[in-house]
Amino acid sequence: MAGNTIGQLFRVTTFGESHGIALGCIVDGVPPGIPLTEADLQHDLDRRRPGTSRYTTQRREPDQVKILSGVFEGKTTGTSIGLLIENTDQRSQDYGEIKDLYRPGHADFTYDQKYGFRDYRGGGRSSARETAMRVAAGAIAKKYLQLQHNVVVRGYLAQMGDVCCELKDWSQVEQNPFFSPDSDQLEALDALLRGLKKEGDSIGAKVSVVAENVPVGLGEPVFDRLDADLAHALMSINAVKGVEIGDGFDVVAQRGSQHRDEIRKDGFQSNHAGGILGGISSGQTITASIALKPTSSITVPGKTLTRQGEEVDMITRGRHDPCVGIRAVPIAEAMTAIVLMDHLLRHRAQCGDVSHSQK
Amino acid sequence: MAGNTIGQLFRVTTFGESHGIALGCIVDGVPPGIPLTEADLQHDLDRRRPGTSRYTTQRREPDQVKILSGVFEGKTTGTSIGLLIENTDQRSQDYGEIKDLYRPGHADFTYDQKYGFRDYRGGGRSSARETAMRVAAGAIAKKYLQLQHNVVVRGYLAQMGDVCCELKDWSQVEQNPFFSPDSDQLEALDALLRGLKKEGDSIGAKVSVVAENVPVGLGEPVFDRLDADLAHALMSINAVKGVEIGDGFDVVAQRGSQHRDEIRKDGFQSNHAGGILGGISSGQTITASIALKPTSSITVPGKTLTRQGEEVDMITRGRHDPCVGIRAVPIAEAMTAIVLMDHLLRHRAQCGDVSHSQK
Amino acid sequence: MAGNTIGQLFRVTTFGESHGIALGCIVDGVPPGIPLTEADLQHDLDRRRPGTSRYTTQRREPDQVKILSGVFEGKTTGTSIGLLIENTDQRSQDYGEIKDLYRPGHADFTYDQKYGFRDYRGGGRSSARETAMRVAAGAIAKKYLQLQHNVVVRGYLAQMGDVCCELKDWSQVEQNPFFSPDSDQLEALDALLRGLKKEGDSIGAKVSVVAENVPVGLGEPVFDRLDADLAHALMSINAVKGVEIGDGFDVVAQRGSQHRDEIRKDGFQSNHAGGILGGISSGQTITASIALKPTSSITVPGKTLTRQGEEVDMITRGRHDPCVGIRAVPIAEAMTAIVLMDHLLRHRAQCGDVSHSQK
Amino acid sequence: MAGNTIGQLFRVTTFGESHGIALGCIVDGVPPGIPLTEADLQHDLDRRRPGTSRYTTQRREPDQVKILSGVFEGKTTGTSIGLLIENTDQRSQDYGEIKDLYRPGHADFTYDQKYGFRDYRGGGRSSARETAMRVAAGAIAKKYLQLQHNVVVRGYLAQMGDVCCELKDWSQVEQNPFFSPDSDQLEALDALLRGLKKEGDSIGAKVSVVAENVPVGLGEPVFDRLDADLAHALMSINAVKGVEIGDGFDVVAQRGSQHRDEIRKDGFQSNHAGGILGGISSGQTITASIALKPTSSITVPGKTLTRQGEEVDMITRGRHDPCVGIRAVPIAEAMTAIVLMDHLLRHRAQCGDVSHSQK
Repeated sequence: MAGNTIGQLFRVTTFGESHGIALGCIVDGVPPGIPLTEADLQHDLDRRRPGTSRYTTQRREPDQVKILSGVFEGKTTGTSIGLLIENTDQRSQDYGEIKDLYRPGHADFTYDQKYGFRDYRGGGRSSARETAMRVAAGAIAKKYLQLQHNVVVRGYLAQMGDVCCELKDWSQVEQNPFFSPDSDQLEALDALLRGLKKEGDSIGAKVSVVAENVPVGLGEPVFDRLDADLAHALMSINAVKGVEIGDGFDVVAQRGSQHRDEIRKDGFQSNHAGGILGGISSGQTITASIALKPTSSITVPGKTLTRQGEEVDMITRGRHDPCVGIRAVPIAEAMTAIVLMDHLLRHRAQCGDVSHSQK
Repeated sequence: MAGNTIGQLFRVTTFGESHGIALGCIVDGVPPGIPLTEADLQHDLDRRRPGTSRYTTQRREPDQVKILSGVFEGKTTGTSIGLLIENTDQRSQDYGEIKDLYRPGHADFTYDQKYGFRDYRGGGRSSARETAMRVAAGAIAKKYLQLQHNVVVRGYLAQMGDVCCELKDWSQVEQNPFFSPDSDQLEALDALLRGLKKEGDSIGAKVSVVAENVPVGLGEPVFDRLDADLAHALMSINAVKGVEIGDGFDVVAQRGSQHRDEIRKDGFQSNHAGGILGGISSGQTITASIALKPTSSITVPGKTLTRQGEEVDMITRGRHDPCVGIRAVPIAEAMTAIVLMDHLLRHRAQCGDVSHSQK
Repeated sequence: MAGNTIGQLFRVTTFGESHGIALGCIVDGVPPGIPLTEADLQHDLDRRRPGTSRYTTQRREPDQVKILSGVFEGKTTGTSIGLLIENTDQRSQDYGEIKDLYRPGHADFTYDQKYGFRDYRGGGRSSARETAMRVAAGAIAKKYLQLQHNVVVRGYLAQMGDVCCELKDWSQVEQNPFFSPDSDQLEALDALLRGLKKEGDSIGAKVSVVAENVPVGLGEPVFDRLDADLAHALMSINAVKGVEIGDGFDVVAQRGSQHRDEIRKDGFQSNHAGGILGGISSGQTITASIALKPTSSITVPGKTLTRQGEEVDMITRGRHDPCVGIRAVPIAEAMTAIVLMDHLLRHRAQCGDVSHSQK
Repeated sequence: MAGNTIGQLFRVTTFGESHGIALGCIVDGVPPGIPLTEADLQHDLDRRRPGTSRYTTQRREPDQVKILSGVFEGKTTGTSIGLLIENTDQRSQDYGEIKDLYRPGHADFTYDQKYGFRDYRGGGRSSARETAMRVAAGAIAKKYLQLQHNVVVRGYLAQMGDVCCELKDWSQVEQNPFFSPDSDQLEALDALLRGLKKEGDSIGAKVSVVAENVPVGLGEPVFDRLDADLAHALMSINAVKGVEIGDGFDVVAQRGSQHRDEIRKDGFQSNHAGGILGGISSGQTITASIALKPTSSITVPGKTLTRQGEEVDMITRGRHDPCVGIRAVPIAEAMTAIVLMDHLLRHRAQCGDVSHSQK
């Protein structure tokens, strides 16, 4: 049924296939009177755009977004905002050969089984290309959050294969093609990706998102907790297989005396919780991480079936990232911002204006 | 705002505080004509119930559930089902001393900040006591899934502290107080918990859920993917800080050639994906894991503030589990079953009857 | 599927059958800190209660409501509020004879066709008895609206059969068993009902609702307009076959120069619109009317079928109102208040605090 | 907040202003494998289109709809369908003079009060121009309903001013510019509109919708009844002030013995209920009517205020219909089809495949 919508009050609905005519979305519930231009959205779209470095797919899409409604004389009107990106570089001839194949690790098999057939051109709706509209919609949320509440949502590559990147310097993140905050690891990342390209293989990644200055009180127990909604939004990104809030899976081996964040007059003394207690933001920095699987679009031959049930070996040709995690950074930021924005409005509805904790 | 509902078509709405008069829920969207009795719900409630072993809180609640509506002559009518559990063992005098304290690691601070005050008796709505209703509602989903589609949803303790339990034997799980499928680790678990009790400390845990015979095709891209909705449901459980599907965070260091599950005539050759591809169930067994933090209700003194902003040291008295992860097993099963049930109905709405994959 | 919920932010979910164990509901999204007692709800429940005059069914239900959660030390906590009314006067033996009959004009046939069978005791879920929980939930909305925004929602009987009641005097409404604001028509109403009782027949009614001091700006174009949501809520009341806002069906024969409400410095010069323009409240008094069909529970014999398809003539015995419209007044008020409350929160989420128009 | 979506499982979300760049919508939840072309949508868009007769506004819009996604090789894929209509005839210069005026009877005042400002060009989002996307989305529902279930949804003009049109002949409806099924009244309608044009005034209308072959069992008590959802959908159409199901307001003066539809082996003996009992379709023909107010865009001068609070007299220039009810026929059909389609899917989710009543 209808699964192309996220959010309750800040509500994003998307459409579009990898090689269709266009991608689009409707962003509903945006407060009126907020300055908004296409340039506000384009910045993050450019960060996500393929073809920006030799490490990402060479598909060249300008990904030029148009605002079709909901903005008048430079300001949001409070009505629904229509966004559109036309697909220009479709090259659907590339994909004819996978028409009758179930690429292992892809959604070909499950789409076919669910819907009876599928748009096989570049993965159709299951392609990560749809995330462009998430980034566009997320940029509206990011703008609002920053402008009205000084909330800053940023992401970075935390790990690729065995290469760990520490959060040493935010300014580094936008200065290398890996979104790495750790300049000491740039060479190792480069070497890893070069090796993978040569082998025709791919690698997984861990991406972290950090949201600073989040007001206290966001989140609606018991099901629509802030962490639960973040988990939903982040797990909905293509290739994500795990989500952590705060210390995440490290808590399994922690003790209560170690995990609980003690409080003093000058605030919390640690942040194992990742800024969320009982499903509600505590005013501390929110931290989340996601695990992204290695793309299955590789040239190492793989065993699979045709739609007709014949066993074959296949190779994925075409333009593909050896590490899809790289480009997931702006997407993870966007999804985080969409959830925060939604909960900001939800909080305001029930409890009135938000505040930043004094603690 | 209204966050006490989960599910779109199989919809569960709950109420109730730890030391209020009663807990309750409404389960809406249940197909008509399904045999259902209170005993069907009581079994899982008893598995979750406190006071069943020396390792869990000694609060004694019979947790006797009543079906108030929606069942007639032993069968569901298709109308909303009202469920009620009366609180009998309230002992609210135990909790007077935390009235003006923010217990570190608890939701006291965030509830106070969000709502302006809180029901301080045993955590009020933020207490894990509300999960009793999740288990009751989940039992309806489990029954339907098993009866109509032979789907089996089971969970187990996968890790506690550094003690890992392998999935050796399902029959073991119900025969020890830890839900451990690994009888070789029972002594180690016992030793760990005894040590913690002595020290007045607590420990985290990892719980895994496995759903077998899930029909192919469940999940609604692009936002309401099956994995995204599972992540939401599982992260909404108290104390959960991480969710994994299939290989989870291990994918970060995997290669594409290793992760992708190849397909042959006799089916998938591995299950790194955890039974979900492109957000849609593949017909393979679904596997998910969650990380549960160590409870902050410990007797090791902790630094915190009073509501008035005074710095104090505090100890949590009362009846508390040294490892809340133990009792999370039936809750995780319930949340998984609720999501599967919801998506089964959603699939049927758009695509007609479900089938089990031939692959 | 799940149809027992109304509202987005102020969300009411109900359960319960006419002759089941209890009726209940969960009210979610209530702002915290609002004083609330059972007495606040009981007042309207008593107004709706059967058996209060010789003109209504003699079923005697105390309809004593209990608040099970969400209120602490006399104030709403912001968490979900559970409400319960136990059924005491069930007398299900009265209804055995209709077990296999489709009473004409009732939902027996459609429930059977939809769900495969039905709870035949007093109409089960299709009985107007479920409206008791609407009244209880609506009372929370009424209290909030009046306390926080001075909004007053009141209803009255506008017509019964051919007897029209003019809105002459609000104070009259609570002083006669008909909710008539027109004391000149009390004798005519009494005569009409006496005649119907003698004949064993019933009559339709028109009920009007008036909401004063509604803030300007409530309503969300283009689908969730205030008038559209009012129409939904009011049409969802048992027996309602028509809904009007402002001049309603009279507009068919009106001219634009006559209908449009002109504006001067002292405000609107008329109120043909009924307080809603473009789906948004204008700050004028909101007026709505509903048409309620005559109950089909009469002793005039009617032709119908058995479940087995046999043709029979039937008489409805038992305790029934000759005019169900009478008791619809508090229900219509409740539904109106629920919609206004929901839209007040929705407005606050997107646009901030409401205001009363200066116009 | 987010009010631009209608439907739960068949979900339509729209955007676009009268004089913006484009109108668009996303239709989500459409079953896969249904043949669909732009021509399927264009037919109803052409019926709604302005400029098709001298009785409607002379604004000339080709209203050419494009399908941007969700259809592959001529069939729906089950993913979200993006639709777009570019605005070509914008002439926004016409509207400069109303920039600072609150046109009486329009949404200018309420949009300004709600959002702080408004897109004044042709009414912006409050213009009936947005209904083009309702018609496009409704055409998908109509196609599915007819193709899969033989359901036919048709509307007609039932009354304009004092001129009543009887449902004499469906084939007439498409052969005159009034959608009148009564050829005996064409002259009277023509005379009425000519007179109004001369006077610069406008008139209200009543439009009726009829849905035949509706399966039995559609509708979800107690709030999402089929009639309640129809009332919501129909009241959400611009200018609608009243909605009736079946006999509508006539029931106020009816007796139970007269209203209830008796049942015999050959089916219901009458249809006062309009095909819905207890909120669930009975398998009989569904009938609904709506009252549309006379447009306030007339050349008879009207008293109003400027945004600055100054009293002025104003005239609405530009291209306007003297009776907006005429073009509401395809819109009312579309909204009815959307609701039926949504409930068909909802029924299928909970109760399995629909059937046509044997009664």
